[in-house]
Amino acid sequence: MQRARHDRLVDLRRDLHRHPEPAWREFYTTSRIVEECERIGVDELLVGPAILADGERTAVPDDEELATWYERARAAGAREDVLEELAGGYTGAIAVLERGEGPTVALRVDIDGLLREESRSDEHVPTKEGFRSETGAMHACGHDSHATMGIGVLETIAESDFQGTFKVVFQPGEEMVAGAKPIAESGHLDDVDYLLAVHIGLDHPTGEVVAGIDDFLAVHHFRADFSGEPAHAGADPQEGKNAVQAMATAIQNLYAIPRNDDGPTRINAGMVGGGSATNIIPEEAFIEGEVRGRTTELMEYMRERAEQVLESAAEMHGCSLGLSTVGGAPSATSDAELVGIVHEASTETEGVDTPTERDGLGGSEDATYLMHRVQERGGRAAYVCIGTDHPGGHHTATFDVDERSIDIGVDVLTESVLRIAGERP
Amino acid sequence: MQRARHDRLVDLRRDLHRHPEPAWREFYTTSRIVEECERIGVDELLVGPAILADGERTAVPDDEELATWYERARAAGAREDVLEELAGGYTGAIAVLERGEGPTVALRVDIDGLLREESRSDEHVPTKEGFRSETGAMHACGHDSHATMGIGVLETIAESDFQGTFKVVFQPGEEMVAGAKPIAESGHLDDVDYLLAVHIGLDHPTGEVVAGIDDFLAVHHFRADFSGEPAHAGADPQEGKNAVQAMATAIQNLYAIPRNDDGPTRINAGMVGGGSATNIIPEEAFIEGEVRGRTTELMEYMRERAEQVLESAAEMHGCSLGLSTVGGAPSATSDAELVGIVHEASTETEGVDTPTERDGLGGSEDATYLMHRVQERGGRAAYVCIGTDHPGGHHTATFDVDERSIDIGVDVLTESVLRIAGERP
Amino acid sequence: MQRARHDRLVDLRRDLHRHPEPAWREFYTTSRIVEECERIGVDELLVGPAILADGERTAVPDDEELATWYERARAAGAREDVLEELAGGYTGAIAVLERGEGPTVALRVDIDGLLREESRSDEHVPTKEGFRSETGAMHACGHDSHATMGIGVLETIAESDFQGTFKVVFQPGEEMVAGAKPIAESGHLDDVDYLLAVHIGLDHPTGEVVAGIDDFLAVHHFRADFSGEPAHAGADPQEGKNAVQAMATAIQNLYAIPRNDDGPTRINAGMVGGGSATNIIPEEAFIEGEVRGRTTELMEYMRERAEQVLESAAEMHGCSLGLSTVGGAPSATSDAELVGIVHEASTETEGVDTPTERDGLGGSEDATYLMHRVQERGGRAAYVCIGTDHPGGHHTATFDVDERSIDIGVDVLTESVLRIAGERP
Amino acid sequence: MQRARHDRLVDLRRDLHRHPEPAWREFYTTSRIVEECERIGVDELLVGPAILADGERTAVPDDEELATWYERARAAGAREDVLEELAGGYTGAIAVLERGEGPTVALRVDIDGLLREESRSDEHVPTKEGFRSETGAMHACGHDSHATMGIGVLETIAESDFQGTFKVVFQPGEEMVAGAKPIAESGHLDDVDYLLAVHIGLDHPTGEVVAGIDDFLAVHHFRADFSGEPAHAGADPQEGKNAVQAMATAIQNLYAIPRNDDGPTRINAGMVGGGSATNIIPEEAFIEGEVRGRTTELMEYMRERAEQVLESAAEMHGCSLGLSTVGGAPSATSDAELVGIVHEASTETEGVDTPTERDGLGGSEDATYLMHRVQERGGRAAYVCIGTDHPGGHHTATFDVDERSIDIGVDVLTESVLRIAGERP
Repeated sequence: MQRARHDRLVDLRRDLHRHPEPAWREFYTTSRIVEECERIGVDELLVGPAILADGERTAVPDDEELATWYERARAAGAREDVLEELAGGYTGAIAVLERGEGPTVALRVDIDGLLREESRSDEHVPTKEGFRSETGAMHACGHDSHATMGIGVLETIAESDFQGTFKVVFQPGEEMVAGAKPIAESGHLDDVDYLLAVHIGLDHPTGEVVAGIDDFLAVHHFRADFSGEPAHAGADPQEGKNAVQAMATAIQNLYAIPRNDDGPTRINAGMVGGGSATNIIPEEAFIEGEVRGRTTELMEYMRERAEQVLESAAEMHGCSLGLSTVGGAPSATSDAELVGIVHEASTETEGVDTPTERDGLGGSEDATYLMHRVQERGGRAAYVCIGTDHPGGHHTATFDVDERSIDIGVDVLTESVLRIAGERP
Repeated sequence: MQRARHDRLVDLRRDLHRHPEPAWREFYTTSRIVEECERIGVDELLVGPAILADGERTAVPDDEELATWYERARAAGAREDVLEELAGGYTGAIAVLERGEGPTVALRVDIDGLLREESRSDEHVPTKEGFRSETGAMHACGHDSHATMGIGVLETIAESDFQGTFKVVFQPGEEMVAGAKPIAESGHLDDVDYLLAVHIGLDHPTGEVVAGIDDFLAVHHFRADFSGEPAHAGADPQEGKNAVQAMATAIQNLYAIPRNDDGPTRINAGMVGGGSATNIIPEEAFIEGEVRGRTTELMEYMRERAEQVLESAAEMHGCSLGLSTVGGAPSATSDAELVGIVHEASTETEGVDTPTERDGLGGSEDATYLMHRVQERGGRAAYVCIGTDHPGGHHTATFDVDERSIDIGVDVLTESVLRIAGERP
Repeated sequence: MQRARHDRLVDLRRDLHRHPEPAWREFYTTSRIVEECERIGVDELLVGPAILADGERTAVPDDEELATWYERARAAGAREDVLEELAGGYTGAIAVLERGEGPTVALRVDIDGLLREESRSDEHVPTKEGFRSETGAMHACGHDSHATMGIGVLETIAESDFQGTFKVVFQPGEEMVAGAKPIAESGHLDDVDYLLAVHIGLDHPTGEVVAGIDDFLAVHHFRADFSGEPAHAGADPQEGKNAVQAMATAIQNLYAIPRNDDGPTRINAGMVGGGSATNIIPEEAFIEGEVRGRTTELMEYMRERAEQVLESAAEMHGCSLGLSTVGGAPSATSDAELVGIVHEASTETEGVDTPTERDGLGGSEDATYLMHRVQERGGRAAYVCIGTDHPGGHHTATFDVDERSIDIGVDVLTESVLRIAGERP
Repeated sequence: MQRARHDRLVDLRRDLHRHPEPAWREFYTTSRIVEECERIGVDELLVGPAILADGERTAVPDDEELATWYERARAAGAREDVLEELAGGYTGAIAVLERGEGPTVALRVDIDGLLREESRSDEHVPTKEGFRSETGAMHACGHDSHATMGIGVLETIAESDFQGTFKVVFQPGEEMVAGAKPIAESGHLDDVDYLLAVHIGLDHPTGEVVAGIDDFLAVHHFRADFSGEPAHAGADPQEGKNAVQAMATAIQNLYAIPRNDDGPTRINAGMVGGGSATNIIPEEAFIEGEVRGRTTELMEYMRERAEQVLESAAEMHGCSLGLSTVGGAPSATSDAELVGIVHEASTETEGVDTPTERDGLGGSEDATYLMHRVQERGGRAAYVCIGTDHPGGHHTATFDVDERSIDIGVDVLTESVLRIAGERP
């Protein structure tokens, strides 16, 4: 462990932690990443529109929301020239090192925060140490450390004798499962032979590294809008087309989609609402929800059934249905060849006392889009977990990472990249 | 009151009471009516297929059920030649007296029983006096007395100086709101200038006569069959198309059809069922139900909404829907001109101590089909209630009529028919 | 019609129209009313806490909302001393004239606006004439003219030879059916012998006056909050207590409460919502809704059934239920004696070309609380409608009143008050 | 393979196949088993009440149904003395061989048929060969061959040098998951050291033997009866307590019980119904359904949630709920020690070309009650599958077994019993 690198990375992580930004609002974050990449000196640095396929972004906030975060980033010191490129919420970056003949290896890290408040407890390290969030959002899933590890690996590989091409993908919008698809569709991973993605924590303690995470639940995140007709609930109830009745019928039947013997499935109507006044038959209602499945097929089974439920519920109550995709991700499997190499690398890394070969996630993650893209073209991919002692659970107000694991992550990933390029498994 | 007529009518009523027959199974009943009409000597006597428009009967039982009642009627002494005409469940009769120039006046009486058991209590007069039902069904709504009044009025008019044409319609299948429509469609009422329909009881005591009943709820009686796909509930639940889920979704939404500011509406899923085994995803389910409205328009509003609910519920669960009409009747109003005459007649009839001009039914009755048919062609119609002390409520096991009201009914109706023919209101 | 009075009243009405304030936020409005009452010179003037029974207000906004409107009223010129008395949203006023021996007669007018935007069309008179709303709310139901009529009648009675006590109740919060109950419970109407309430418009044109409005639907406005337990929808769905499922089950069954043969009923789940994130099993959900009935008993029938549905739905999904009353009003009937006098008075009033004795409302109104309070103690009450040509319907963006009807209202009501005091019906 | 034994067993199997009898109606079957046991000569033979714990039977048919099958068995030639012991539906038997010192080994076979019609196709062997069902029920799951194997093993062990105690449990009522529990509770297995249970087929072909079946879904089969109040749907809908609405609410919410991350769960409302007439608010309704889980805990999770749904749905609609258990079975695991021995035995058995160590059932089976009983007391248990070519799937009209597999089953099981007794694993 180099002390200088450690301090630099911790500073960066804490700066990012102080400025968490949710999906498509990672203006300050992207600006800081650009600064770091320029410091390191990369051969190519793509940001914003250059890495996101046209029309593939989902869950983009409205202009007012974007403007608020844009100004906040500016006020926090984001670079004006970078901000201009990101206008409209085209955030994220890809940094490329070209080091002669050799395979193309990529590392994907995600960079967005969550829309939740951070703990003000004195026992919460970011509060105690003075780097608690200043934006109202929170890095409650450790993506500040992911971005930092991305920089750390980039820097270390840049200084190594790596032969080939190395890309670090700083992906926006993972929490909305919205950021990976436009990057996958942009084609910037089409030449990648080996892809590693990384996550910190996941209930694994500092010192444990899981070389291959599997059991991603494929997920589809949708929004259904029911539009009916209002009517006075006292005078003319029969004139209404009740969007809330349609919504309630849909909710009941969504949760009742048959269980599937082929494997686990999930359904949730996570945010719902409707109506305008107590005495008006509600003309508008919505469900923002998700379906999941252990495999992409299982998720598609749920999605198909859910869409039928939504359509029939709307029709039943004379409403029209607007159905849109908010986000999503397929299932994925970590390739054994890469898992083996990462496992070996972690075994030999200082600070790793529990090298683990495989574990399941049981959740969703849109890195799977990128893994699929690479695997479809004959490449290999693995999803690595760097354990960390985290006092609160992921997504809670007291989540935090043990900063020693950032060094471990950089070391394991760097060593893995070097071995992969050398062994070409 | 003539003693001989009284005794004869009471004998007839008790004979019919002993042999109650439900819709389209009134074999013995029709045979007895034919015998009485022949005894009286009518100018024309139509039975069965002759009075029922092709394809308009609904709620016809299956062949096995028809055969059971046919044989039971034969065993009870129904005339073979009549039975032959009624084959296939074409029951009921129209008797016609032609007495020269004059208007055509008609009286409609219904003749069917209900599928329920009769009380065995010694306090129940039919049990005590030995004329309790022998068929398993029951005359729990007094149609035995209606048929008897029809014979009584026919006989009395036949002996009077009535000028014109007089028809008595002995209608089957009222309890299923199924018998009036095929008679209306047969055209046999198209020449009728004045129509009276009669009901006994309705919570009015002996001595009260209501000249004009209104507030009929229009009714539509439907059957919905959901057909899905079975699957093993343990091994492959996802393979099923669950007809019971479709049914349950429909039931919830049927009852939730919006109330209508234009007037009272009703909905009932009165008989429902589905499934074949605990461990099989149910492939079949049904709802037999009804919608009603104070007006025909209100009933149609309910019907339209109900059908949308049923169709969408089936579609939601991948089921097909079979929807059929079991019965129905429109709303109707008694014409003031006839109500006035019947009211006058009842005022002057022995035994009537509470002549009442108007009251509401608040239920449904398919006499309304016949009333409409007559009114549409410029004729007039009224629905008359002959009060009777009835110990149990209509449709209960202890319903019975005070036989004195049969004489009152015959007298009021005969006098009304004579006055109508004379006054031509 | 006096030109000076007319101009004064129109000025007042337009000033109020420019400053519409919703329930418990009528700070500017109350201040203006106080100014007018002081100008007229009343014997007693009660505002705010003095007229509202402790703990009986419902639908009170939170402190922040109250503060916003309080400051807006101050900025618009509301009197500081009055505002102080109204702190906490204790709005409204009662003005009293004591003129010797004689009965106590009261007039109730409501003063609140609606939370909806006003039309910006040049065809909309308030826009064209420059008195469009400046607050974001709107006087879309004519309460600006009601308050104005209250002042007009107060002024005219003050100048008359009226003998007895005359009270004008300037009631807040009618649109939330929340303002009448705390006034009724305050006891300030307990000495009232005769009460008139007034409404403008209701689809009656200028020149029509309805002496007695009936057919108020009793109403109960509730809020149900379901609290369950959150859980990750992918990782641990079984750990959640799903408040949205409880809410959906309740909605379906609320609308399905059986129709009641005793008369019209209503139910509406007018505003609903729940959940926090797509991937979290929703722990919170709410229904803000209403039940109504043609009679108070019918409303209570609906309320009882609705509460059972809400409780069982919560229990079914392991949620707790918080149930609160937002507002409500009983049904009511206008007393014939008062209706007769108002009808006579309107017949003889200039500008009234269509005096009408009775009509039905078919909606709800919390004046009924005050009518009940007076009637329970042996007094008499009537609800009067002053017709006005209104281009848009009540509660729409283009609602407006024909200002001539303000004069008509003042004249009819003043004459009615004088006759009532004279005749003591 | 001995020809004589083969012919004898085939005769027996075909006789049983011709007389399939469902749960608690296995009168003829038990009589035939008794005859065979007496032929073989056992040391103890227990039937009926002696092997069924008091009050533990569920799903017992009513007296009329029992009488019908009792008479049918008598007519088919069942022994009068045996029938007398079975009166009341106490069917089944346990045969015991006592052969000196040694462990107690038991074999459980189930003997009941299914209530479904058998194919009449000429391609269906039982039809072609003349042993198609004569009872209207069908051995569509191969229990005829199970009973036959029980006899075959009993006979072969009786002729062997087996040392110890050997019991064959001929269990009734497996298809209703109702027969094992009363046998377990009777204590007759409490001295058993080793238990084997056997099933034929399960999609494994002739020549395959699976030594240990696992992945039983624990199951709970319930009946819920909702009792409300009837009312006339036209006249007084508000007077009813609608059991069908309660049922529909329950169905919707049963299927919507949250999926559980701990493993597969199942829910089915397999048979439902309610109501008496179209125009009567339904006072009665029922759901006969089941919940399952991969583990007993998962089943209990589903059961608890289901019961809450049923209770709250009843309460919501003012109905009372009657909830009863129809049947059920826990999950279970085959012990490795026995699996190993059975696997070895099958490997060396003639006719077994695919010895398989383990497979999953993915369904339910109440043998698990008996396995649990034995395992709880320190014994060991395994569930063995004898493959057979079956033309139609289990429970279908064309299910049949390849009779060669009966011999294989007898041989594998006999050899296993002998080795178990010898090795005492």
